[in-house]
Amino acid sequence: MKDFSILSKDELLKYREELQKQYDTYLIEKLDLNMSRGKPCKEQLDLSNNMLNINDYISSDNIDLRNYGILDGIKEAKEFFASLLDIDKNNIIIGGNSTLNMIYDAISRLYMFGYMGSTPWCRLEKVKFLCPVPGYDRHFDILEKFGFEMINIPITKDGINMDMVEDLCKNDENIKGIICVPLYSNPTGTCYSKETVDRLAKMQTKAKDFKIFWDNAYAIHYIYEKIELYNIFEACKKYNTEDRIMYFFSTSKINFPGGGVSLLAGSDNTIKDTLSHLSIQTIGYDKINQLRTVKFLKDKENTLKFMDKHANILRPKFDIVLNTLEENFNNNPILKWQKPKGGYFVSVDTLEGLAKKVVAMCKELGVVLTDAGSTYPKKQDPKDSNIRLAPSFPNIEELKKAMDIFCLCVKIATIDKMLA
Amino acid sequence: MKDFSILSKDELLKYREELQKQYDTYLIEKLDLNMSRGKPCKEQLDLSNNMLNINDYISSDNIDLRNYGILDGIKEAKEFFASLLDIDKNNIIIGGNSTLNMIYDAISRLYMFGYMGSTPWCRLEKVKFLCPVPGYDRHFDILEKFGFEMINIPITKDGINMDMVEDLCKNDENIKGIICVPLYSNPTGTCYSKETVDRLAKMQTKAKDFKIFWDNAYAIHYIYEKIELYNIFEACKKYNTEDRIMYFFSTSKINFPGGGVSLLAGSDNTIKDTLSHLSIQTIGYDKINQLRTVKFLKDKENTLKFMDKHANILRPKFDIVLNTLEENFNNNPILKWQKPKGGYFVSVDTLEGLAKKVVAMCKELGVVLTDAGSTYPKKQDPKDSNIRLAPSFPNIEELKKAMDIFCLCVKIATIDKMLA
Repeated sequence: MKDFSILSKDELLKYREELQKQYDTYLIEKLDLNMSRGKPCKEQLDLSNNMLNINDYISSDNIDLRNYGILDGIKEAKEFFASLLDIDKNNIIIGGNSTLNMIYDAISRLYMFGYMGSTPWCRLEKVKFLCPVPGYDRHFDILEKFGFEMINIPITKDGINMDMVEDLCKNDENIKGIICVPLYSNPTGTCYSKETVDRLAKMQTKAKDFKIFWDNAYAIHYIYEKIELYNIFEACKKYNTEDRIMYFFSTSKINFPGGGVSLLAGSDNTIKDTLSHLSIQTIGYDKINQLRTVKFLKDKENTLKFMDKHANILRPKFDIVLNTLEENFNNNPILKWQKPKGGYFVSVDTLEGLAKKVVAMCKELGVVLTDAGSTYPKKQDPKDSNIRLAPSFPNIEELKKAMDIFCLCVKIATIDKMLA
Repeated sequence: MKDFSILSKDELLKYREELQKQYDTYLIEKLDLNMSRGKPCKEQLDLSNNMLNINDYISSDNIDLRNYGILDGIKEAKEFFASLLDIDKNNIIIGGNSTLNMIYDAISRLYMFGYMGSTPWCRLEKVKFLCPVPGYDRHFDILEKFGFEMINIPITKDGINMDMVEDLCKNDENIKGIICVPLYSNPTGTCYSKETVDRLAKMQTKAKDFKIFWDNAYAIHYIYEKIELYNIFEACKKYNTEDRIMYFFSTSKINFPGGGVSLLAGSDNTIKDTLSHLSIQTIGYDKINQLRTVKFLKDKENTLKFMDKHANILRPKFDIVLNTLEENFNNNPILKWQKPKGGYFVSVDTLEGLAKKVVAMCKELGVVLTDAGSTYPKKQDPKDSNIRLAPSFPNIEELKKAMDIFCLCVKIATIDKMLA
């Protein structure tokens, strides 16, 4: 593309006119394209249709799963996820269909009842949480709901700014937790390095009931490269800090978002404490769906092969996004992005103060993006520059058009800023 | 049976010896019978097996239910339950597999966030709840968990002691709610009369955020007689008190306890307030199971026919319990019970101070009953006399034997009390 910085004002104005013509053409087309959420597409969902034909209800230890009971999940589900994620099966609780719900519930329990007899967070004057940014809007929404003060922690190449995290946690007992997506992070695709994980496990925290919410949502959701995440349980074992881990995972983006199986993993103490509350909350989650899921996915090897199929569907879509960005903005400072190795998003940064404008322009042309600001607590991106692109749901043709429109809007907004 | 009151001490001692011989015989048999929980039996569960062969995932309004979205439940589920329970479909939220979980969550929300801007209950010095007794142990466990003071309200022939309820609610603003099973109540089988429902709707409550938790768990679970419960929404509409209703129902005891569908119903305000919190808690419940359930049950007419099949399985079991009680204790004041018209339990009252003893004796003979005291808050039955019998799960032969043993233990415990 043209290097804006060497163009004269007249040249910029002329180019702006050309772009406006394209804009007006799209305006007439009245498109309806959506790149806003990390939803699997139809082809991905079809991969799991045979799961719905599984009608078993007797567990491997001969329990009738149609009836009440088994609060913490069926035996084969615990064994399956233990093997898949390299976690002890005794440190896993299998839940309902939503990790988000499990995270919310875990925070609720700490808020209402505390951790193993500690002061419930609702009794404290102030609770603060560390929020890697850009991050996942629904995480921030939960923390905001509980009235916690959220402190932005910048995402880095290898994870998050650990100097900042260590310094804050060591000195402030109101900091009760951090919420992380450690692999193929939403939205930047960041993968936490071994050193980052190790430092999170090792660091001193002034709060004794400090928790790391480890939302490993994309644990096996590679697209370009399988990254091995350093096992946080292993790391914490070294420093005797296992009680700080609240680990989450689900099959929502393996099988069906609308009917998956989620899990919480934690230390012996965390499992015991959680079950003491959970036994009051419910008699048990949907065990038939737990069995259905495990019978379908079978084992780790089969599941990873299955994830290859997802990757094969997603890769061409990510190629379009990344190639279009490359073609339009290669080495041009007006838009920056990282190539993710997996996950569901491409995170881009416009020049300061342009994200909202670009998203609004795209919307006017019928391309819905995630709201600008969403990747920051309280939807406040201090630089108004981050935009999350979600390529999974649209088809290839839609995506191409949506990306062309996105690039057009970035260019117009940038020129307008330069001319202002 | 023998009328203990006209027997001499010697005659009692002699009879006691006879009974002891029977006791010793059972002791040698080492039985393993369970009448402790309201679990459907295998034959009941088998009625719904075809549900597991339903593999649809597109809703009537053409939405792919495999994917994310639809927080408040799918269209056809709302319409189905609206018709079944005579509630406006717009006043229903469809949930996961557990009503208990929905009740716990609803109380959690009031505890953490209040109702439509009112003070969250966790910020109050004291919260009190009214508990109809004998009642459902898991309800009481939830209230105990939150540290609420529980006030026993006696169950009556027509519901609960409404004079007491009205008097308490009018004068004490710390009383924030009551938790009711209004039809075929657990464990007494009590059905709330129109007058009881009407008075609950009409009564003054000093607490503006007073809630009636209306756990209509057995709404269509008749065995001997279909009872029409007066619609509490209709009643509340008359007095403009709809905001006090928190209505719950599920298919756990229609299809599968381990994989049912639950619902919460409430006023427009309650639905709006609930969704404002729920939208932070989850993206949505298992919609595929919602569709599976509705496709299987079809409509109200078909569902009621289906419940006839349940009744036909349960009735012979309840006959055994009631006939055995009749044969052993007819018109004898040492054991009292009510014949339930539906539900899952028979509630009996021994002479004062004998319930724990009887349950312990039964356990020694291999018959597990619900723990004595369980039907009261904090497991404290002030008279130690109530025992809940749950006939649904054992088969006919087991049940006969279990009931013989139960009657034997009641007799021995009673004679021992008389001789003491």
